[in-house]
Amino acid sequence: MIVVMKSDSPAGEVERISKELCYWNVIPEKLLGSHKVVIGLLGETAEIDPKQIQNLSPFIEQVIRVKKPFKKASLEFRYGEPSEVVVPTPNGPVTFGQNHPIVLVAGPCSVENEQMIVETAQRVKAAGAQFLRGGAYKPRTSPYAFQGHGESALDLLANAREVTGLGIITEVMDTSDLEKVASIADVVQIGARNMQNFSLLKKVGAFGKPVLLKRGLSATIEDWLMAAEYILAAGNPNVILCERGIRTFDRQHTRNTLDLSAIPVLRTLTHLPVMIDPSHATGFSEFVPSMAMASIAAGADSLMIEVHPNPSLALSDGPQSLTLEGFEKLMQEMAPLGQFFGRWTKTPPSIATPMLPKVLKWG
Amino acid sequence: MIVVMKSDSPAGEVERISKELCYWNVIPEKLLGSHKVVIGLLGETAEIDPKQIQNLSPFIEQVIRVKKPFKKASLEFRYGEPSEVVVPTPNGPVTFGQNHPIVLVAGPCSVENEQMIVETAQRVKAAGAQFLRGGAYKPRTSPYAFQGHGESALDLLANAREVTGLGIITEVMDTSDLEKVASIADVVQIGARNMQNFSLLKKVGAFGKPVLLKRGLSATIEDWLMAAEYILAAGNPNVILCERGIRTFDRQHTRNTLDLSAIPVLRTLTHLPVMIDPSHATGFSEFVPSMAMASIAAGADSLMIEVHPNPSLALSDGPQSLTLEGFEKLMQEMAPLGQFFGRWTKTPPSIATPMLPKVLKWG
Amino acid sequence: MIVVMKSDSPAGEVERISKELCYWNVIPEKLLGSHKVVIGLLGETAEIDPKQIQNLSPFIEQVIRVKKPFKKASLEFRYGEPSEVVVPTPNGPVTFGQNHPIVLVAGPCSVENEQMIVETAQRVKAAGAQFLRGGAYKPRTSPYAFQGHGESALDLLANAREVTGLGIITEVMDTSDLEKVASIADVVQIGARNMQNFSLLKKVGAFGKPVLLKRGLSATIEDWLMAAEYILAAGNPNVILCERGIRTFDRQHTRNTLDLSAIPVLRTLTHLPVMIDPSHATGFSEFVPSMAMASIAAGADSLMIEVHPNPSLALSDGPQSLTLEGFEKLMQEMAPLGQFFGRWTKTPPSIATPMLPKVLKWG
Amino acid sequence: MIVVMKSDSPAGEVERISKELCYWNVIPEKLLGSHKVVIGLLGETAEIDPKQIQNLSPFIEQVIRVKKPFKKASLEFRYGEPSEVVVPTPNGPVTFGQNHPIVLVAGPCSVENEQMIVETAQRVKAAGAQFLRGGAYKPRTSPYAFQGHGESALDLLANAREVTGLGIITEVMDTSDLEKVASIADVVQIGARNMQNFSLLKKVGAFGKPVLLKRGLSATIEDWLMAAEYILAAGNPNVILCERGIRTFDRQHTRNTLDLSAIPVLRTLTHLPVMIDPSHATGFSEFVPSMAMASIAAGADSLMIEVHPNPSLALSDGPQSLTLEGFEKLMQEMAPLGQFFGRWTKTPPSIATPMLPKVLKWG
Repeated sequence: MIVVMKSDSPAGEVERISKELCYWNVIPEKLLGSHKVVIGLLGETAEIDPKQIQNLSPFIEQVIRVKKPFKKASLEFRYGEPSEVVVPTPNGPVTFGQNHPIVLVAGPCSVENEQMIVETAQRVKAAGAQFLRGGAYKPRTSPYAFQGHGESALDLLANAREVTGLGIITEVMDTSDLEKVASIADVVQIGARNMQNFSLLKKVGAFGKPVLLKRGLSATIEDWLMAAEYILAAGNPNVILCERGIRTFDRQHTRNTLDLSAIPVLRTLTHLPVMIDPSHATGFSEFVPSMAMASIAAGADSLMIEVHPNPSLALSDGPQSLTLEGFEKLMQEMAPLGQFFGRWTKTPPSIATPMLPKVLKWG
Repeated sequence: MIVVMKSDSPAGEVERISKELCYWNVIPEKLLGSHKVVIGLLGETAEIDPKQIQNLSPFIEQVIRVKKPFKKASLEFRYGEPSEVVVPTPNGPVTFGQNHPIVLVAGPCSVENEQMIVETAQRVKAAGAQFLRGGAYKPRTSPYAFQGHGESALDLLANAREVTGLGIITEVMDTSDLEKVASIADVVQIGARNMQNFSLLKKVGAFGKPVLLKRGLSATIEDWLMAAEYILAAGNPNVILCERGIRTFDRQHTRNTLDLSAIPVLRTLTHLPVMIDPSHATGFSEFVPSMAMASIAAGADSLMIEVHPNPSLALSDGPQSLTLEGFEKLMQEMAPLGQFFGRWTKTPPSIATPMLPKVLKWG
Repeated sequence: MIVVMKSDSPAGEVERISKELCYWNVIPEKLLGSHKVVIGLLGETAEIDPKQIQNLSPFIEQVIRVKKPFKKASLEFRYGEPSEVVVPTPNGPVTFGQNHPIVLVAGPCSVENEQMIVETAQRVKAAGAQFLRGGAYKPRTSPYAFQGHGESALDLLANAREVTGLGIITEVMDTSDLEKVASIADVVQIGARNMQNFSLLKKVGAFGKPVLLKRGLSATIEDWLMAAEYILAAGNPNVILCERGIRTFDRQHTRNTLDLSAIPVLRTLTHLPVMIDPSHATGFSEFVPSMAMASIAAGADSLMIEVHPNPSLALSDGPQSLTLEGFEKLMQEMAPLGQFFGRWTKTPPSIATPMLPKVLKWG
Repeated sequence: MIVVMKSDSPAGEVERISKELCYWNVIPEKLLGSHKVVIGLLGETAEIDPKQIQNLSPFIEQVIRVKKPFKKASLEFRYGEPSEVVVPTPNGPVTFGQNHPIVLVAGPCSVENEQMIVETAQRVKAAGAQFLRGGAYKPRTSPYAFQGHGESALDLLANAREVTGLGIITEVMDTSDLEKVASIADVVQIGARNMQNFSLLKKVGAFGKPVLLKRGLSATIEDWLMAAEYILAAGNPNVILCERGIRTFDRQHTRNTLDLSAIPVLRTLTHLPVMIDPSHATGFSEFVPSMAMASIAAGADSLMIEVHPNPSLALSDGPQSLTLEGFEKLMQEMAPLGQFFGRWTKTPPSIATPMLPKVLKWG
């Protein structure tokens, strides 16, 4: 349930109403929108009569019941206002959101050694990325496959962060590792396979660090938003949704099927920012550029792209990783498109002026 | 199997070799590529020793076996050269292909009456479309739903063609209707539900009119190319592939899941042009614009968009149809993006100069 | 809409009411159930007030609106009474239905030559089958694969029918072949790929021969019943539904996923008999026996099993075909299970007494 | 890699070889099969030459490389011998395995209060169940839905165990709860949503209690066996696989699609016992009986069935729960079928002699 205040409401009135609302056994949450103030009510609101709340003050414009099963994640809960996830990084705060430049996240599937992670960080930063991704704990289908270097990889990520100033995004797989991971990560990632690991969702919700929530392989949009709701309900408003391909009947030529229409659909359902990961979605580096371009055109707020100095030697996910040069080339091709849509940060000085290709050819 | 000729081969030599190849009981098919001449061999080539063919002439550069189950549809068969489907329309020939402007196809799900189809044709033409789509025979899930006006609707399409000069794309559902449909249609459409109606594929293959082959709801990329192969094998080289969404586990917010990565995947497998139909894929008009933009960025050669003068009164597929104004607005937004990629025809004079929106907002 | 008559209604009254109902512009259809007479109304019933019909006669017990999108296929339309599809064969009529023995259909994927089809027919008849299946026209993914022997294969099926007295089930793929196919077939099959070939459905609906309607690869239960409705609405009440596996994300170890729960689901939705085809569903002969047994336990009314004298040499679908011996063994294992459920015909004399295996082992 | 010993090998020779094999840096694991002794080798075996091992002793019959990505879970690793999971319960040990009676697991989705869980336990025991299922920690899609009573529910399960002597199966969702859960549970359940929670798999693998591993919603058979491999590789051989329905495109009439062919497929791939959960698979109690019967006919080693004293008041999953009477009725119908297949325990004295139904009717 949300209480929409009239635009000329005195500040004190909002406080007074919030206090009174507590008598209904709900937790009021104030949202300062661009035009209006909205008070969201959390808790058992089913029995509350909206008219009674309406009567609390003449400055209340409207009382609206949120009908979606996800409440705090719903667009209604913010009265249509997109949320912004601001992440502090050594290079300054980076904002994920619909009215901000597209945030670029790049890096290897897993952190393999100091040299590769630092080199990758330096190169992707120079090319324009704001975040470095890299797995310390890796969810692998096989127990005999490389499981990530764990804690020591976290130290290497900390190193790369110090050297480049990039923010760090890395995955947490176990509630007992959360403190360790969050001590290094600027954004904590929940992987697709853990999207409905509700214990983990509750714990990252209580923890406070921004969370990147990957969509499960067979999660419906609603399943996904309900998973986000676990984090929001636990008190953490900083959730970024990441579409990384869903599992369908056709798995011969791509690893998953990128569901790009999730972007416009999510825009009608939620205020949360949306990232696209074309690397995991397609599973092959040759398909990444065209899907990255399509993601920009579809309105993505952020892109996560796998990059490795030597994909053929990668300990995991080599086939879907761009080379450092491949990533630089892609950045040069994406930049004018991002600018076209008014959603690109100023080109960093270390990159030569990108030339506008006449006809882009992918794959 | 294909025979690649050296670039300086005398024309007579290609003829001579083609004739000799007939002794192997195969049908040679000459392709004049941009750099080379290639001879494709159709028939039982499994037993043929490539070296024996190589020995036929010193002007043969290479003999390559096509390993894909689809032969004529494969990229190898054209030695990497994209094919062009040139469709004569009253307004002049329109070419579908990777090195040509994006072809715009627009119109209602079904032809309802003369006024609506002619008005729609005039407006979409003015907005920049080259083809009018409109169903005369409609595949409907229910036998009690409107089945299309059939033959009389074909006449109305002929009318709209005469008035506007647009090419006509309409569906054929039954082998016995093919002649009638093809007498009006410039491109004959095979619908998703008939993608593996092999009798129909063979018949349109033998007929000669260009064919738009929609992907089946659960057709793999390979199933789809094999369906195209039926048409090509029957002698009709003019096939356009149309992705219109596949069936997945999530059907709550979109009718189907648009598989946009099919574009880069198809580029590695086939020379055939690719159209995207965001209307059927998403099922809701509000999701069409962002997916149309994404399709352009992903490299689509053509777009098919459902447009209806009054979607709320449409006899079929209203929710996914743009209004005439919605289509005009979308065309104005797509034009600069198409120009950005160097794939847009010159703006027709009847449309006001499109303004470049700073930040596009969809949905 | 259906009109349920009281059990003591005079016969003349039913006729009188039927005649009066025609004034509402609907077509009344009388059903003699085991306990009651029901009159089904076809046509535009949305505007009719049930009370007005109720007033037609004191012998009307109830007027019920059928809410399902499928009308004649719905269980309500027959007031819960399962329908029976009685097929005349040279060996006598065979009834498909819930209160009848399980009907066994066996034979090769395609009719290859006279000897193989006659031998197969004789052996499967001896083992207890009532119908011979065999493809004359084959829907094949590749245009270069064996497409069936067509018309000449129909003659061979006629031969096998004459020799054994078995009923014949064979597929029709094209409206223009229907008369030819139906002149031989006792049951005309619509294949999975043509389940939504609505032209074909209408034509077999108008034709009269019993129809076996296979479920499409990605057809929902409702899609499937709507396809059946096409046939029923065209006037042909003799439809048998056949589940043959659906397409899912896991295709590594089975060709499709057998959806056995379709049986109890269909029981709540429709009166039509249900056949299971474990051969196409699994794609491998070693998985056929356990799925055939499971189908019996789940309540299937009929089973279709692929059998070939020499599967390794089969022109199509070899891996999923049982040998003649394998089929005989399976029949011996199924017989006691069918008897256990009270749904097995008396063992034919030519088969030795089946022994009850202590523990059945499959695979 | 496995080392198959000749049947007359002296015991000391097996020990000697095992010791020598350690030089290859592998861990030998002795399996006493019904006919032969087999030594499984775990670790990096890719570089080992089988011939060198063969030369270790004349009593070695064969050295076989396990090619499947799952090693200890593979049928080859046990040389075709099905494994048995023996679970001690207060009523005596219960064995899950192909050559044993079908094990019946029944109980509510979640433990709601003492009375309901004890009453349910008593009734399902009287009806013939060997295990009580009941959730203490519940994975729920919504954070606002009932999450299970947690620790206090574990105490109630302990109570029910003491009163009835039934074994207890309950789910663990978080590594940090494992000790608590395992102190009460006789079998620890990993739910479908946690099937690829690799941290949890490793921990239950190291713990020792038997594990019930539910198949993930979109897990392929291979994904599932790889998840089992995590547990086996961590040293716990007692894994039971549970199929509970997969996610497909058709979710209108059933919650998931029961993949019953998983049973014969798993028989060709693994030695592990297989349980079927028709309650979660179908999502509706009316479809449970026919799917339970089909599971028995397909060869299931165990069945898990949701039972609740008052499904309409259940705090979770009411629609799919049988009533106590419904379960008793089903047990009476399953018993003769289980006996038919030679896989039913002797009828407990408290149940009246089941009558053999002539024609079973479901739904």
